[in-house]
Amino acid sequence: MRHKSFRNMACPIARSLERVGEWWSILILRESFLGATRFDEFRENLGIAPNMLARRLKGLVGSGLLEKRRYSDRPPRCEYLLTDRGRDFRPVLWALIAWGNRHFFPEGPSVVLVDGQGVPADPVLVDRSSGRIMAAPEFRAAPGPAAGARTRARYAARSAL
Amino acid sequence: MRHKSFRNMACPIARSLERVGEWWSILILRESFLGATRFDEFRENLGIAPNMLARRLKGLVGSGLLEKRRYSDRPPRCEYLLTDRGRDFRPVLWALIAWGNRHFFPEGPSVVLVDGQGVPADPVLVDRSSGRIMAAPEFRAAPGPAAGARTRARYAARSAL
Repeated sequence: MRHKSFRNMACPIARSLERVGEWWSILILRESFLGATRFDEFRENLGIAPNMLARRLKGLVGSGLLEKRRYSDRPPRCEYLLTDRGRDFRPVLWALIAWGNRHFFPEGPSVVLVDGQGVPADPVLVDRSSGRIMAAPEFRAAPGPAAGARTRARYAARSAL
Repeated sequence: MRHKSFRNMACPIARSLERVGEWWSILILRESFLGATRFDEFRENLGIAPNMLARRLKGLVGSGLLEKRRYSDRPPRCEYLLTDRGRDFRPVLWALIAWGNRHFFPEGPSVVLVDGQGVPADPVLVDRSSGRIMAAPEFRAAPGPAAGARTRARYAARSAL
């Protein structure tokens, strides 16, 4: 089933989801971060159907999150590597890990974020320039320089986003 | 089409996506943060088909991200409100905004994050207790206390996640 595209929406969340929002896509990226590069590795680690995996990999390559590289000519073999854009998705995955652990692991977390000494870390968003913790309602989403009239109207009132 | 469930995977990313990973779900949450509460508001703002919207709202209510509340008996009318769990998803949305703006807005951002004075903020993940910026490879995902053998093996090597 083809669903409605978010590509032309004037929203960074929507345009991001256009690239990573299909079922499986983010777990494929997780696998890339965990070291998977070959088609069969993704397939086995995820238990995903081959035709679905092929479609998702193609999408992630097309969106510039993965790079497809031929590493053998005889036999022909390809691998899938994270690009800079793909690696830059890590903070979103970490934010998902933190949220998921808080809400969906009553048995305790099976994956945690740690520092170089293995000490668990508690990720929080901070404004890089001022060093302040970004919490609502002080911090919020607002119209940017390229906002059209509709976005300006929607974000003009102090939203809770 | 029913796709494979991520519910029983021992991964906080997977269990999060089980709740928010369907096409439209995260945009519905965005609408909630922007103030939408009624079915027709979601429908009009998103341009989503009613049967799809009904399905997604039901899923988000079932996952405890939205609460369905009857606000009128005659005529019967319901509204959908963010729960604490739903509001706690805000950092993921902000991380998506930052990533989307960096990669998919060559024309400049239409939505930005700002502080109380309207000054643009640059969100970065920081460890709340130590105050250090969480960057790879120092910070990383590692097996947690409830990790099974498979998760331990997969995260034992210093992964890039």
